[in-house]
Amino acid sequence: MTTMKAAVFKAPGRIELVDKPLPQVGPNDALVRITTTTICGTDVHILKGEYPVATGLTIGHEPVGVIEQLGSNVQGYVEGQRVIAGAICPSFTSYGCQDGVPSQDGGHVGHGYKPMGGWRFGNTIDGTQADYVLVPDAIANLAPVPDGLTDEQVLMCPDIMSTGFAGAEAANIRIGDIVAVFAQGPIGLCATAGAKLRGASLIIAVDGVDERLRISRNMGADVTLNFREVDVVSEILRITGGRGVDAAVEALGLQSTFESALRVLKPGGTLSSLGVYSSDLTIPLGAFHAGLGDNKIVTSLCPGGKERMRRLMNVVASGRDDFGALVTHTYKLDDIVAAYDLFANQRDGVLKIAIKP
Amino acid sequence: MTTMKAAVFKAPGRIELVDKPLPQVGPNDALVRITTTTICGTDVHILKGEYPVATGLTIGHEPVGVIEQLGSNVQGYVEGQRVIAGAICPSFTSYGCQDGVPSQDGGHVGHGYKPMGGWRFGNTIDGTQADYVLVPDAIANLAPVPDGLTDEQVLMCPDIMSTGFAGAEAANIRIGDIVAVFAQGPIGLCATAGAKLRGASLIIAVDGVDERLRISRNMGADVTLNFREVDVVSEILRITGGRGVDAAVEALGLQSTFESALRVLKPGGTLSSLGVYSSDLTIPLGAFHAGLGDNKIVTSLCPGGKERMRRLMNVVASGRDDFGALVTHTYKLDDIVAAYDLFANQRDGVLKIAIKP
Amino acid sequence: MTTMKAAVFKAPGRIELVDKPLPQVGPNDALVRITTTTICGTDVHILKGEYPVATGLTIGHEPVGVIEQLGSNVQGYVEGQRVIAGAICPSFTSYGCQDGVPSQDGGHVGHGYKPMGGWRFGNTIDGTQADYVLVPDAIANLAPVPDGLTDEQVLMCPDIMSTGFAGAEAANIRIGDIVAVFAQGPIGLCATAGAKLRGASLIIAVDGVDERLRISRNMGADVTLNFREVDVVSEILRITGGRGVDAAVEALGLQSTFESALRVLKPGGTLSSLGVYSSDLTIPLGAFHAGLGDNKIVTSLCPGGKERMRRLMNVVASGRDDFGALVTHTYKLDDIVAAYDLFANQRDGVLKIAIKP
Amino acid sequence: MTTMKAAVFKAPGRIELVDKPLPQVGPNDALVRITTTTICGTDVHILKGEYPVATGLTIGHEPVGVIEQLGSNVQGYVEGQRVIAGAICPSFTSYGCQDGVPSQDGGHVGHGYKPMGGWRFGNTIDGTQADYVLVPDAIANLAPVPDGLTDEQVLMCPDIMSTGFAGAEAANIRIGDIVAVFAQGPIGLCATAGAKLRGASLIIAVDGVDERLRISRNMGADVTLNFREVDVVSEILRITGGRGVDAAVEALGLQSTFESALRVLKPGGTLSSLGVYSSDLTIPLGAFHAGLGDNKIVTSLCPGGKERMRRLMNVVASGRDDFGALVTHTYKLDDIVAAYDLFANQRDGVLKIAIKP
Repeated sequence: MTTMKAAVFKAPGRIELVDKPLPQVGPNDALVRITTTTICGTDVHILKGEYPVATGLTIGHEPVGVIEQLGSNVQGYVEGQRVIAGAICPSFTSYGCQDGVPSQDGGHVGHGYKPMGGWRFGNTIDGTQADYVLVPDAIANLAPVPDGLTDEQVLMCPDIMSTGFAGAEAANIRIGDIVAVFAQGPIGLCATAGAKLRGASLIIAVDGVDERLRISRNMGADVTLNFREVDVVSEILRITGGRGVDAAVEALGLQSTFESALRVLKPGGTLSSLGVYSSDLTIPLGAFHAGLGDNKIVTSLCPGGKERMRRLMNVVASGRDDFGALVTHTYKLDDIVAAYDLFANQRDGVLKIAIKP
Repeated sequence: MTTMKAAVFKAPGRIELVDKPLPQVGPNDALVRITTTTICGTDVHILKGEYPVATGLTIGHEPVGVIEQLGSNVQGYVEGQRVIAGAICPSFTSYGCQDGVPSQDGGHVGHGYKPMGGWRFGNTIDGTQADYVLVPDAIANLAPVPDGLTDEQVLMCPDIMSTGFAGAEAANIRIGDIVAVFAQGPIGLCATAGAKLRGASLIIAVDGVDERLRISRNMGADVTLNFREVDVVSEILRITGGRGVDAAVEALGLQSTFESALRVLKPGGTLSSLGVYSSDLTIPLGAFHAGLGDNKIVTSLCPGGKERMRRLMNVVASGRDDFGALVTHTYKLDDIVAAYDLFANQRDGVLKIAIKP
Repeated sequence: MTTMKAAVFKAPGRIELVDKPLPQVGPNDALVRITTTTICGTDVHILKGEYPVATGLTIGHEPVGVIEQLGSNVQGYVEGQRVIAGAICPSFTSYGCQDGVPSQDGGHVGHGYKPMGGWRFGNTIDGTQADYVLVPDAIANLAPVPDGLTDEQVLMCPDIMSTGFAGAEAANIRIGDIVAVFAQGPIGLCATAGAKLRGASLIIAVDGVDERLRISRNMGADVTLNFREVDVVSEILRITGGRGVDAAVEALGLQSTFESALRVLKPGGTLSSLGVYSSDLTIPLGAFHAGLGDNKIVTSLCPGGKERMRRLMNVVASGRDDFGALVTHTYKLDDIVAAYDLFANQRDGVLKIAIKP
Repeated sequence: MTTMKAAVFKAPGRIELVDKPLPQVGPNDALVRITTTTICGTDVHILKGEYPVATGLTIGHEPVGVIEQLGSNVQGYVEGQRVIAGAICPSFTSYGCQDGVPSQDGGHVGHGYKPMGGWRFGNTIDGTQADYVLVPDAIANLAPVPDGLTDEQVLMCPDIMSTGFAGAEAANIRIGDIVAVFAQGPIGLCATAGAKLRGASLIIAVDGVDERLRISRNMGADVTLNFREVDVVSEILRITGGRGVDAAVEALGLQSTFESALRVLKPGGTLSSLGVYSSDLTIPLGAFHAGLGDNKIVTSLCPGGKERMRRLMNVVASGRDDFGALVTHTYKLDDIVAAYDLFANQRDGVLKIAIKP
């Protein structure tokens, strides 16, 4: 076989399934046959033309599959092995990577930093919504799937769990913390699970969809608030006796959620932001205590690499939570245009869709 | 003697020297006879009515003096001892204090957090621009001055060094970092010194006054930039070869310095903010990498307490830098209205004024 | 009433219940009427004369009770309030406390550090195995019990949970870590629960008593090893594929457990030690990689203070684990000599005994 | 030219200069022509047969040179460029590297951890005391030398500065700390400089050679103690008023220095160990406060990689200290046997010897 199906960006509003030649495998690459992938909110931004990518680029960045072919420098794996790779595929060797921010990998030209530079699949190189994907810097990024885990169980690892957990990790949660998580889409749900994994003793989940709030309780939320029904800021201040929360995670990317997250923080608290914003943000003077509140605002891009994936799959294997439950629908790759339509319009209670080539 | 001189806030634009009764010493207090104090930029905000305090309140929060009388619970000191106290005087016993943010001490009513609650001198209780000051929670806040150090040498410890160093500490500087410090007033100069103390190998100091830039070189700056002469953002990006700085310290409190600090950060870098802002802030989408740059924005309020003061005085004693050199003028307490006039108008190259009762 | 019952140390091997006068309440103290207390392994060391205390000292350091009388400086509480206090009661105001190690509080004479100086109950002042206890520095140490929690549920907070969790916290556990906990007495069981609360995905619990291993599974252990049945070091290396664990918690205080914990660490791993040792320790050259393994050995003394207690009671209230289940027996204070006999000889599957005045 | 000179281990007590073929350059390698290298204390252990390496292996791990030839995968460099590489050359891509301990790199077989596995030059592959050296994983390890720095100035970066600074970094030094550094050989001198770079305000340097103590003052020591003249432990406790030091760095590898470092620590203090030990260590019960002192013992292996080297060379370039001054002697590679004789016997005040092919 020399060609494959791939979902490519054609123009704003148009993602199409096309035939593409199988990629050539360079010395540091691995060719992976996709068995399951999924659609991310970022892909919808691409579909709508809000995040520009090259015409004809294959979209998608969440691969589960089987090693088809290994480059000459890629040791420690065998063909036929089940693997995943992170949505972010850093080289881990550049200055930026060695400096502790691999997601901002700028490669080996210049100084080694580039904003979001570690995100390559479906952004700067062909992605995973296809029969095959070429994994760059494969020795750093291919993570074998432990026996006994299904595709659906590990499908959240490349992006959703890694990002959501990063929100909890960057919030520097301590045992006994009170944490609020704004928005309970797939990433927010994983931030909720992450807050529980770090030891928060009271987790307040916020969303506007009751079904998502119901699921958030399974992921660790102790209290749920529907912003369509209550004033979330005053309600959280009431629950905490006026103290505020130790940490707030923003998982949507709007001024309103960012600002609410800031307004419910205790002095000394941390706002951990995961959302992708599309306009300038305003920091209200009062909520920022004029710059004297010992507050932190931290942002995180999805951590990648095989070690991160190994850890996340171990969390899945531990049964601490059922991350496979976030998969609400399954589509064939052939039907991906319909899957985009369902997902972009958030119909039918969709959280994540398993796409099967 | 039962009365003393004190500089009090009368009305916007009016600070006056008046007679006040000597304060009564409660069980946890210490009465300190001031030998030297100084005027802070915050005091000028109070003078102008931009930061509201009660009419008749004694202003000032930077005490150097001698213990006159100790409360019944205050052990470990003797009357006649030379001491300083931090501008911020936390109890260290409240929930907020025990939780790691003593500057946000909310006391023992409610949950123990209050924005800037540790700042009491010249804010919520009578301050230090007087013959005497009552130090609350004295056992936690009185710091004996090591032999051999002059008043001028330790006068920067209560606020200027503590705040400036906190800016460097919160920036999480590592050996070999490149750091930019925006504004080289007294606090910015100490942030520059702090960046050097934490191991930065290239410190870029920014200001609009050449004399301050000259002094910044003595405090550790390797490169100085006058924003009246160069485009600071593009110049810093040029100096760093497009990489940006590991950390930027904001030491003024304006949108322009905040925004420039953000624009020169590498992906993954930290903006450490010290300034007191007077309006909402805008985070530009691009400089924030849409929330995906692994950046941090951290704010710090001056750390207080006798242990902090002990450490800072040890730094002074080590001779690592000459912090006494920041004192450019000396006035009698009787002439404090003239001292405010000089300081508020930044005439005559003034940095800090020693006020002597 | 002017006298009370108290269990005091008489001589090695003899703890007796005697009558003592009710203590006088100083300005910073609170008198607490004990409703429930318990016996700790440390108390058994005292009983046996292995840890010297003054003859006639009241033993015990785990108080649950009701405020009977407040000192004149103790604000924010009311008499009749249900409270606990930590086993360690720091002042939080000394140099050592402000420097981040309140358990090593040396008070206000000298430099403010003293090894284990924060431990006062039943060590340097009268303890909690009595009708009443005087809590020093009460404003920093009295923690109100949330409504709805029983004495038994919060009885683990003052020492057992605080110490056990500290073992997990000091181990710097990250999401996805593999952690081994050596010994599953009450503190080891809480270290196991703490490892889960911090996000470990594989927790290996080690003990020689099957019943304790069974309970450890309820607290979060994924794998249990009985050292009477297997070679623990080789078994852990086998389970981890030769890699070793990210962190090992020592919760007993013997050379053998210390050494095994070191031998199962990955290069770069952390040994978090909680045990009270009674002889010099040996670090084997090989297990220490000749000092080049990037390893850490950290020790922790039980953190105290009202903020710590507040957080731990919130964990109890969250229902994350059933810490009340560690109470296996209940005795009247009048029968405390029999309780010591049961506990010291570890009969009848005893874990913790609720002692009721 | 197809052959080169190389200093190889022949047998215990015998290092000889021999002819070897030039190495073949693999796709991830770079061939570097050595312009300056040096001898390390570890090399003397190898010479004496105390640390076993293969017969015929080229010794040495501190390269300064010029790129002669680049492997096919090595981008971002040009032949003829002046470079250094760290003594430790991790791949940065293995599990162990991505997990934050690159010096313990176990490669891509098994789990990716191996004690000291990142140390390859002169240990598991041919080293730098030769005309040429093959740098593995070159893209991660080649660090260009900034213009204007001499070979001697950057010769300390690959090992001495990186290790010494790591001792200060791992000690978690804060502004105002008191730090003791035991042994003032080249690494101890750099630990002293590192302690100053991290903000220590009182650095106590210990050694038995007055000349080294004199040099330590240039590197930042405030107080020097000759252990042949004073009881170091009691003297440090006297200097600190009985409090002890915040951190102690061990830079020799003996029980006596390890134990003294522990004995001078404050409760809560950190012992940062750099030495290579050759026998089991004993932790005295009292100095360890029976395991209850909130102490830390941390070990560090020299950090490597191009980012670390870049930072260290920037420190050199900043002129903060004169690290070139540690080079006390210069020898031709042809005379390396004589150089070993001088260095191993510590004659003539030798600190470091520049070896020139």
